[in-house]
Formats: sequence, structure tokens, C-alpha cells
Amino acid sequence: MPLARISIPHHLSGPRATALADAVHDALVATCGVPQDDLFQLVARFAPEAMRIDPHFPGGVARSSDASIVEISFLRGRSDAQKRALYRHLVSQAMEAGFRADDILVALTENGQIDWSLARGEAYASE
Amino acid sequence: MPLARISIPHHLSGPRATALADAVHDALVATCGVPQDDLFQLVARFAPEAMRIDPHFPGGVARSSDASIVEISFLRGRSDAQKRALYRHLVSQAMEAGFRADDILVALTENGQIDWSLARGEAYASE
Amino acid sequence: MPLARISIPHHLSGPRATALADAVHDALVATCGVPQDDLFQLVARFAPEAMRIDPHFPGGVARSSDASIVEISFLRGRSDAQKRALYRHLVSQAMEAGFRADDILVALTENGQIDWSLARGEAYASE
Repeated sequence: MPLARISIPHHLSGPRATALADAVHDALVATCGVPQDDLFQLVARFAPEAMRIDPHFPGGVARSSDASIVEISFLRGRSDAQKRALYRHLVSQAMEAGFRADDILVALTENGQIDWSLARGEAYASE
Repeated sequence: MPLARISIPHHLSGPRATALADAVHDALVATCGVPQDDLFQLVARFAPEAMRIDPHFPGGVARSSDASIVEISFLRGRSDAQKRALYRHLVSQAMEAGFRADDILVALTENGQIDWSLARGEAYASE
Repeated sequence: MPLARISIPHHLSGPRATALADAVHDALVATCGVPQDDLFQLVARFAPEAMRIDPHFPGGVARSSDASIVEISFLRGRSDAQKRALYRHLVSQAMEAGFRADDILVALTENGQIDWSLARGEAYASE
């Protein structure tokens, strides 16, 4: 029920795209109590001119052409510590797949149980 | 002023894509007090490898390759009952267009009147 | 750290797409205290049938085939006055690039500092 939008540059190989998506999901499972099979991801590729990203903000960062953006929508209620662990786990696993730590941006958006219907027109929240 | 992002698999026909988009809008009109002409939708197609969706979560669901994701941003203030009715109406109408009930995921995000400018650089909220 | 998604019609020229993206960023810098190098934008093009936008809502507006949608995610805390100034600046600058004032829709979503990791797996919020 997290829904992740993963925006990557056009030139990334299929296996690297998959490895990043796996890192996103594994991090959610490991740090935020997301079930292993609670997987909903959309991966989109962007040409260089369609992905306008500053290479250095904030000071000291050095992004490459592999810079990617991960947006995750999920339920309110994760603690600050869980979010910090999520970022660390995600980037650490992405690095194992060949990404540079400076190339992964993550942004979270939260909503409530009543804001999801996973299937069948039924709200995720019980009545 | 709802803004809907409708993410569908590549193979869906144009008429079925349109029927799903119509279902989204008709459901908003019927259940959430959205005016008929308050229509803002973006439809994007995804290759199978770019749409990573578990076929069974939560238990009992059986998604097909037609599984689609509907994200709606709209104003805070709809009741739980309205959201439940929205899901039911949307999926019911999508089924009339040939979708399976298990293949429609809906996620809602809310914001305020001041967070919209529909045109002319004017906020939707009156001063 | 604002993240902007800019959805434009397929036929827009590259320079006009860039001009709109520049208008979005310059407006954020001028009105919302965003640093000049705090730039994160994704630009996506849509075919006419994938961009379903009412030409007249709300009453009096007259959109053309150039109608574009700007979604901005940023930190909570901007005042209503700042948001109004953001819309005005953005549309004013877009008009200088040849856009009609009726063709720019803007929608804002807010989150917190802990909801961003700009790089290195570190939360933007200090501990």
C-alpha cells in the first residue's frame, strides 16, 4: 500500500532500474513494517532535458547523470526514526547495485487508511 | 479540481482507457460533489516491467495484467462515507467497461483551497 | 527540495517547455524562499487523449491545447500570501514565454522536513 513512483534517467539499464525498485521495496519492508507482498510501484524514465536536477544542492552533494527520484505515498504513522532508517536502508542497498549515494532523492507523502482502496472498490479502512 | 493520475498497462485499448477515466470522473461527480466540468486527468501507460504490482495483496485479491492505479488529489473535507461511495462507484462503472474489480487500486491525497490555482495565476481560495 | 512535476502537451516545443519549467522555479525562488540551486523538476509530455482537461472550468476560463499542469511538493509552512504570489509570478513569467494565463494550472502538496532525503540516505531534518 505504499505506492512508489520511481523516476530514473533514460540510460539506466533494466537490471539497474529493477535493483533500485527492489531497494525501495526492501527498505520499506525492513524499516516500516510493510508486508513483503504489499508491492505497488510505477517506474518512469526521463530524457536528460526532462529531468532538471541541480547537481550540488544542498552544498557538498555531487550528483551524476544517474540521479533518480523516489516518491513514496504511504500511511501516516511512521516515526521519524523509521523514516531515517528507510532512507539509510534504501540508499545502502541501491549502492550495492551500483548507485552512488548522492544520486538518490526520496520524498514521502502520507495519507490515511480511508484514502486507499486496493481492490474491489472497498476502502482499506474497516467500517 | 480533483486532479487524477491514471496509470494503466500499455496493452489497454484506447476505448478501455477512456472508459476507466470516465469511471473516475463520473464517480467523483456522483459521490463527492465534483462539478461535471471540473475535469483534470492525466493518463499514462506503463510497460509490464515498469508497473510492479503484487498480484494478490491483500490476501484473496487476484489481479490480472490489466491492473491499473488511480491517484486522485482533491480538497480536504470529503467524509469517509463519501470516499467509500467513490471507490464503489468507480469500480462498479469500470467493471461495466470490462475491468475486473480486483484490478483497480485507488489512492487519495488531500490539500486545501489555497493549494490550487486553476488558471490565471489566481488562487482558488477567495481572499 | 520542492519537487515539481510539469505535465505538458506533446506538441509544445522544447524551448517553451524549458521556459515553463524556468517559470516554475523562478517563482519558487522569488516568492517562497527556495534557494536558486534547490532545483528538482520532472517534465512529462502527454498526447491529447492522455490529458483530459475541461476547457472552461471554472466558468469564464478558456483553455487552449497548450494547457499544462504544474504539481509542486514542498515543505509545509508557506503562507497563503506566499502561495498567491507564487501563482501570480509563475503565470506572469509563463506568459512572457508565450503561454496564455488560462493555460496554467498549479496544485500544491505539502509535507515535512523529515519526509525528504535529498542524498546519501540522510533525512533533510536534523536530529
